[in-house]
Amino acid sequence: MKVAFKIWLDHNGKAFGDGPYELLKRVEKTNSLNEAAHQMGMSYSKAWKLIQTLEKRLGFPLLDRKVGGVSGGGSEVTSEAVELMKRYDRFEKDVGEAIEKLYQRHFSNL
Amino acid sequence: MKVAFKIWLDHNGKAFGDGPYELLKRVEKTNSLNEAAHQMGMSYSKAWKLIQTLEKRLGFPLLDRKVGGVSGGGSEVTSEAVELMKRYDRFEKDVGEAIEKLYQRHFSNL
Repeated sequence: MKVAFKIWLDHNGKAFGDGPYELLKRVEKTNSLNEAAHQMGMSYSKAWKLIQTLEKRLGFPLLDRKVGGVSGGGSEVTSEAVELMKRYDRFEKDVGEAIEKLYQRHFSNL
Repeated sequence: MKVAFKIWLDHNGKAFGDGPYELLKRVEKTNSLNEAAHQMGMSYSKAWKLIQTLEKRLGFPLLDRKVGGVSGGGSEVTSEAVELMKRYDRFEKDVGEAIEKLYQRHFSNL
């Protein structure tokens, strides 16, 4: 037996969680929302709508769209998104450790 | 902004969580799986299958079926199920408090 969990930030609906974290991490690496979405088996339009929804709920931008230029455009994560990912990652790890400890305390002999 | 979470016990799949907890609580009150399922908008057969699956994954019985008798049958939660519910309830509350504290620590200014 083990314990499993899911956490997310909420503000009038899901504002951030594992899925968005993974999507943004991939944008950070590829500088392309299209490529990041593709890697996760998500359509570009679905990923784009998701980002729009999250930005509205969070109250700050997650992506900077670069239009045209030598590299032909692409997306960059904003500094706010980088900060959010950093915090979320630490938060998620701390939550995992806390839950594991509490599970041992309450269910040590299950 | 706030944090939300879901926890569950896992052993080759979901073995216990909020849904089963609520179902068993209602069986405890009504002594009827049929009534408990109905209150949750679940069919009896779905509730019965769920209980069977959980019992297999947990490795102990959750319900005692009383067949016939003056009261015309019904279901009672086992002592193991009572113990599990008690532990799960405390565990869930402790997890909620721990997550709230960690959320304040990591996202106090979000």
